[in-house]
Amino acid sequence: MNFKFELIKEEKYTKARLGRLHTPHGVIETPIFMPVGTRATVKAMTPEEVKDLGAQIILSNTYHLYLRPGHDLVEEAGGLHKFMNWHGPILTDSGGFQVFSLGKLRKIKEEGVEFRSHIDGSKHFISPEKSIEIQNALGADIIMCFDECIPYPASYEYAKQSMERTTRWAKRCKEAHKKPDSQALFGIVQGGMYKDLRKKSAEDLIELDFPGYAIGGLSVGEPLEMMCEMLDFTTPLLPKDKPRYNMGVGTPDYLFESVIRGIDMADCVLPTRVARNGTLLTSQGRLVIRNAKYKRDFSKLDPECDCYACRNYSRAYVRHLFNVDEILGARLATIHNLYFLLKLMENIREAIKEDRLLEYRDEFYRKYGYI
Amino acid sequence: MNFKFELIKEEKYTKARLGRLHTPHGVIETPIFMPVGTRATVKAMTPEEVKDLGAQIILSNTYHLYLRPGHDLVEEAGGLHKFMNWHGPILTDSGGFQVFSLGKLRKIKEEGVEFRSHIDGSKHFISPEKSIEIQNALGADIIMCFDECIPYPASYEYAKQSMERTTRWAKRCKEAHKKPDSQALFGIVQGGMYKDLRKKSAEDLIELDFPGYAIGGLSVGEPLEMMCEMLDFTTPLLPKDKPRYNMGVGTPDYLFESVIRGIDMADCVLPTRVARNGTLLTSQGRLVIRNAKYKRDFSKLDPECDCYACRNYSRAYVRHLFNVDEILGARLATIHNLYFLLKLMENIREAIKEDRLLEYRDEFYRKYGYI
Repeated sequence: MNFKFELIKEEKYTKARLGRLHTPHGVIETPIFMPVGTRATVKAMTPEEVKDLGAQIILSNTYHLYLRPGHDLVEEAGGLHKFMNWHGPILTDSGGFQVFSLGKLRKIKEEGVEFRSHIDGSKHFISPEKSIEIQNALGADIIMCFDECIPYPASYEYAKQSMERTTRWAKRCKEAHKKPDSQALFGIVQGGMYKDLRKKSAEDLIELDFPGYAIGGLSVGEPLEMMCEMLDFTTPLLPKDKPRYNMGVGTPDYLFESVIRGIDMADCVLPTRVARNGTLLTSQGRLVIRNAKYKRDFSKLDPECDCYACRNYSRAYVRHLFNVDEILGARLATIHNLYFLLKLMENIREAIKEDRLLEYRDEFYRKYGYI
Repeated sequence: MNFKFELIKEEKYTKARLGRLHTPHGVIETPIFMPVGTRATVKAMTPEEVKDLGAQIILSNTYHLYLRPGHDLVEEAGGLHKFMNWHGPILTDSGGFQVFSLGKLRKIKEEGVEFRSHIDGSKHFISPEKSIEIQNALGADIIMCFDECIPYPASYEYAKQSMERTTRWAKRCKEAHKKPDSQALFGIVQGGMYKDLRKKSAEDLIELDFPGYAIGGLSVGEPLEMMCEMLDFTTPLLPKDKPRYNMGVGTPDYLFESVIRGIDMADCVLPTRVARNGTLLTSQGRLVIRNAKYKRDFSKLDPECDCYACRNYSRAYVRHLFNVDEILGARLATIHNLYFLLKLMENIREAIKEDRLLEYRDEFYRKYGYI
């Protein structure tokens, strides 16, 4: 197995850790933020640009690739890395989150989930085995167990039932996994906002001995404090020598608070999605570039940033691009937002190295306007 | 004046010429194709990418920039070069073509053209003086006289009247031009498909002694043969030591036939526009990448091309991108099409150097499927 996690250092004042994740397509310095390339492309970017911005690993979505262009086609192309021309590590999700988000279009059974495509209404069935089959065909370095991500709030009874099924599905995923030597399969701890369920979930999954663990079902609408409480409780239950992944987290505060609680990996569409709407993440907080007040603002997007967009273009120019709906606007905003978050994670790693993560967080929060 | 045209060589068997155009922002090897950056951006591209593809000069549109973001704003930003981060030569058109294309939304008078914005219906008036004022504010290296580009077909009477007005307007443009030392103002020969009118137009404009001449009103729907006939007749009327520009020409055949008849410059939105619809210009002719037959075609976009898109992605992947409406699809197709035309012009210059332009044309036409 080409997969290994090295725990390099634990911070003095928090549970934050520095690590090194070895994958078949390269080594990742953790903690890390993973840009999302839903449909085999990080929206608006080339793979070289994503790499140059500092991304070490990207995430792609099983559900979307299964529907279009189809996992069989991607396999025929030589796998996802070759198909999309990204030669670094890739993580694929299980498709569970998207399928469960379909609402009335899906039906959960013990065997798996029946659903209708959001594109053409065609009927599909994804079981744990099918999810792994698709992910084996795609060929990502890290793949995920098929789980149910329950909404917030959810009743104790439902959270329990669902968590137990997720555990049974995890077992089936492990058994169905055909390429354990080249793809690391991560388990996903569920249990909603109930500590005893989180504990049971973690214990059962640890017994299955996965090479890494995600904490699922967080950042689904609950207050930040509740996510923190669940992380405070859950991460200590997980093995120290394996990577921990908080799924779907991408705002600076959620990233800081996750890392502080021992999280090594996170992903989110937020920086790329809000970029395409013209919202920039800056050292001074969010900036909505379409606002009239930037019309004749010839200053940098973010005075403290040295990304390609900030070095070469003014707010007035980027506002003009958004105003007339030019693709370059989406590109520049995406470049900036990804750089912003990837740089933030680099600074966080630096701060952990020097045991000053809390100071760095407070300084960042003050400037950003969180406090 | 920082503007100079050197005639380097005339081809042995055609009227094709090799030249060197010196502008305040750099030297251009002619004949040249100019990519279009309508609204201060070559659609989907960064300026660095456009330069790396081989572009030596780009064109931008006065009408569009006048409406949004406004020429005064661009001037305040330090001019178009700085605003859009393109540091090579720029040519701006006069706004005439766009204004006259508005149809019922515009009204032509001797003084100028009254029109309503295609965006919000607001009323505007562009005179020759106003067009030059806008172009002076934008600050391009080459600017154009405000002219009327008449449609094809047009009556002799209308063509004559319009041509005479265009000449009167050219005189007014020259007088209004505030920056003759840093911006070269080109005259535009009109006269529709009538040789005596073309002759009169050329003679009158030559008398005004512009540093370069465009031939307007061609490639407006007339057959290729008719364009060739008009060029055959018109270019010999123009001074040899000044650049000649055929406006709005961008398919390989129109480019070849223009160059063969002594044209040094051309521009067109075609390569970038069809790219965004998924049409690729290839050595084997046009390729519509959305077609089902490319679904599992893992070969290069164009087997003979070595652009970034062709080197790194398959037809199946680019088809997938268009199929799911990803920005990267438009980017890759634009990169390929611009590279294709810019490379074609480079090959044309090479062929002129070696007096084998007709052979090269015939070889190209056979492969492309023109003959």
